[in-house]
Amino acid sequence: MAGKRCEDQRGGSPPAQQGIRFNIFQLKSTYTGEDPPRLNIGPPKGFTGEKYGGSTYWDTEAYCLPFYLSTSDAKVARNLLLYRHNHLEKAKENAAKLGLAGALYPPMVTMTGEECHNEWEITFEEIHRNGGAIAYAIFNYIRYTGDHKYLADYGLEVLVEICRFWASRVTYQPRKEVYMILGVTGPNEYENNVNNNWYTNRIAAWCFEYTLEAMELIQKENAQHFNGLRAELGFNEAETAKWRRIAAKMYYPYVKGPDVFEQQDGFMDKELLTVDSIPAQELPLYKNWSWDRILRSCFIKQADVLQGLFFLGDQYDRETKRRNFDFYEPMTVHESSLSPCVYAIIAAEVGYYDKAYQLYLRTARLDLDNYNRDTDEGLHITSMAGTWMAVVYGFAGLRIEKEGLTFRPFLPKAWDCYAFKLRFRKHMLEITVGGEQKMEIKQTGGADCRLLVHDTAYTVPADGKIEVEFSL
Amino acid sequence: MAGKRCEDQRGGSPPAQQGIRFNIFQLKSTYTGEDPPRLNIGPPKGFTGEKYGGSTYWDTEAYCLPFYLSTSDAKVARNLLLYRHNHLEKAKENAAKLGLAGALYPPMVTMTGEECHNEWEITFEEIHRNGGAIAYAIFNYIRYTGDHKYLADYGLEVLVEICRFWASRVTYQPRKEVYMILGVTGPNEYENNVNNNWYTNRIAAWCFEYTLEAMELIQKENAQHFNGLRAELGFNEAETAKWRRIAAKMYYPYVKGPDVFEQQDGFMDKELLTVDSIPAQELPLYKNWSWDRILRSCFIKQADVLQGLFFLGDQYDRETKRRNFDFYEPMTVHESSLSPCVYAIIAAEVGYYDKAYQLYLRTARLDLDNYNRDTDEGLHITSMAGTWMAVVYGFAGLRIEKEGLTFRPFLPKAWDCYAFKLRFRKHMLEITVGGEQKMEIKQTGGADCRLLVHDTAYTVPADGKIEVEFSL
Repeated sequence: MAGKRCEDQRGGSPPAQQGIRFNIFQLKSTYTGEDPPRLNIGPPKGFTGEKYGGSTYWDTEAYCLPFYLSTSDAKVARNLLLYRHNHLEKAKENAAKLGLAGALYPPMVTMTGEECHNEWEITFEEIHRNGGAIAYAIFNYIRYTGDHKYLADYGLEVLVEICRFWASRVTYQPRKEVYMILGVTGPNEYENNVNNNWYTNRIAAWCFEYTLEAMELIQKENAQHFNGLRAELGFNEAETAKWRRIAAKMYYPYVKGPDVFEQQDGFMDKELLTVDSIPAQELPLYKNWSWDRILRSCFIKQADVLQGLFFLGDQYDRETKRRNFDFYEPMTVHESSLSPCVYAIIAAEVGYYDKAYQLYLRTARLDLDNYNRDTDEGLHITSMAGTWMAVVYGFAGLRIEKEGLTFRPFLPKAWDCYAFKLRFRKHMLEITVGGEQKMEIKQTGGADCRLLVHDTAYTVPADGKIEVEFSL
Repeated sequence: MAGKRCEDQRGGSPPAQQGIRFNIFQLKSTYTGEDPPRLNIGPPKGFTGEKYGGSTYWDTEAYCLPFYLSTSDAKVARNLLLYRHNHLEKAKENAAKLGLAGALYPPMVTMTGEECHNEWEITFEEIHRNGGAIAYAIFNYIRYTGDHKYLADYGLEVLVEICRFWASRVTYQPRKEVYMILGVTGPNEYENNVNNNWYTNRIAAWCFEYTLEAMELIQKENAQHFNGLRAELGFNEAETAKWRRIAAKMYYPYVKGPDVFEQQDGFMDKELLTVDSIPAQELPLYKNWSWDRILRSCFIKQADVLQGLFFLGDQYDRETKRRNFDFYEPMTVHESSLSPCVYAIIAAEVGYYDKAYQLYLRTARLDLDNYNRDTDEGLHITSMAGTWMAVVYGFAGLRIEKEGLTFRPFLPKAWDCYAFKLRFRKHMLEITVGGEQKMEIKQTGGADCRLLVHDTAYTVPADGKIEVEFSL
């Protein structure tokens, strides 16, 4: 997939090539889309070690789904979604146990649909995984595949129940006339029980917005089926109006001055330091600092605000992403193997190409070289999917916009070229980004494929190819 | 001690009398001041049951010390203090383990000086117990007994190390030019990991203030000894200046409008409800609600802001106490048997006499009548001391001000009178508050005892008595 010398794509730059191929082999061996009611990827380690027990985490939706969407038949990704649909009744039970409505997919880990973890600060509080990653995966799948039938047959049911969860979990603040979400743990697990985690609030509001859009779409495409769903799921105008109101009145913490989203209420009261101020022997923090010191510090385990800027990337301009990257990246310790890929993607997007490459390197050969001295506990399966994303979404700048592919590629200085295959709907593409800012896109079979490269439109014909020169 | 009909003090109102006498008997049986390096009260249950394992909690300092100060020879209370002094080296180790300076007495529970509990939200975060209750106990003992020698010989050493802990635990907020204390659990354990718990911030600042006062006192009384302490403990002008600065620049959350101290940052963003809105079958909350729902709610387990208004009562006027009582009491579920006594004391002080009596009743015969159906797990030893405080500090309004006793008594409507014995320094007093707003104070032996009743000065002669009529 990636090579130092592109003339020999299959062999060039053996270490990088080997790393990526090893990752792809592991991902393809781990999940093939069989037996959707029961099987999942078993992230973070797949079935390669006893740590994490092969249970299901949000890694599936947040980090692995894009890989399977782009490299496998649509039914493989669809089956990952069906796995969660199959747990819907359990998710409703989970919510009811907490005195809440709708569906709460296990924020941490599950085998059967019930939460299998036991720390309140995670199991009750990392609710962005339920209403963020799992709802987003439905959107992501539909956007990539155009499979509206899945939305009508399965997706909406899950979305509606997740919205009901959020609607019962928000707090209306009458003095400020806003909705808040109190007592959560965001993606950055080096904070616990915070109020108004920006990412959680944003993804909750987005969940209402997307569900309402999805309803409109289904109604437009098949009014009869929509009426059936309305009767079956029991939603009505009053309920959807409430969702619209919550989304519109959601509160978002913000920092004037640096003009960034505030990770959570009170984040700016912390002592703001950068990672390079931490003595090397105190890293990783989770092995060297007390938990309360980690919590009080500004240091960030993994993408939090930036996770939102990645997921909802089309809603924020490059300057906003750059400001937030500049503010949060220097405080990020990346003590999750899932962290660097999201930062690499945003770094690439805002033009920090060297940084993007450095971040990519942090996980590229994580298990082959055993960087963290923990490969004996199992492979970092979901980090492998993240590394793939760093190349395809980061270096090549893949996005899905307006039902089509768009690329904003760059070539890391250390490489002569890189190449990868991509499935998108009925198209099988082979993409090469080469030495002199050239991108070649070749199609096998298929039909006309309209796409953008650095905002210019191109069409790749069936069984044809295009070559694009771009400047950065 | 308490009686419905005072003519027969030993027998009147059998249930109330029996309750109080049972409590006093248990407290006196539980701790006699023997073997101070090893023995403590073993709160909350003493040695009457296996729950809590006879270990030492802050209940000793916060709830039991006043009972032993008033009913036993000074050395009994002094030995409770020596128990903690004996753990000073362990407390320094505890702080060092967390990367902090000075001494961290176990916030939750100990046998040997090490923390014996395992939940981060308690063991790392309930630091007000270390720097609040344990420092306050020294102040309380010195104020009650006048034993300045203890302060110089043992007390200051502990206070200095606690100040060093606080100085390393606060966060300077340069934009607001204040010191904050982030990531704590206050006395109300129905909150975790909050920023700027008002009580914690106030008691930390007070700790600096009192330690600096104590230094001045020792220096004034024995400059040579003070110089020795300075050399031994290694403090200097720069360090004490820093403590003074932190105390002066401490940040206190405040709510305009109701004009009350805000329990912590963000408390006012909660949905503010009163306890009477909770369906009866959902009480107690800790048995019926999920932990995250408890945390998000406004409901208060036990005195928090009010604990500060009790400990530092001479710094706040009655109107301030009344406003805070009016604001917080309706949200308090009293799901700790230590809660009602503090509320009863403040209720009495601000003139809510019926409320004070109702609160007193919640624990008066807790074990005899087995209200909570848990007496098989052991007696509520420290709640017994709290109940004693509700009568003596609440109904009789005992305070120590300017080296002397002061009383602001009232008589609960349900009672004809109540009586109790009180030791204070060289005085043995017997106090009766009777039917027509009369207070009798009788002294056995001793010397002239100057005291205040409802702000009027009186002197009780040796082997004499006074009778005071008061109006409310």
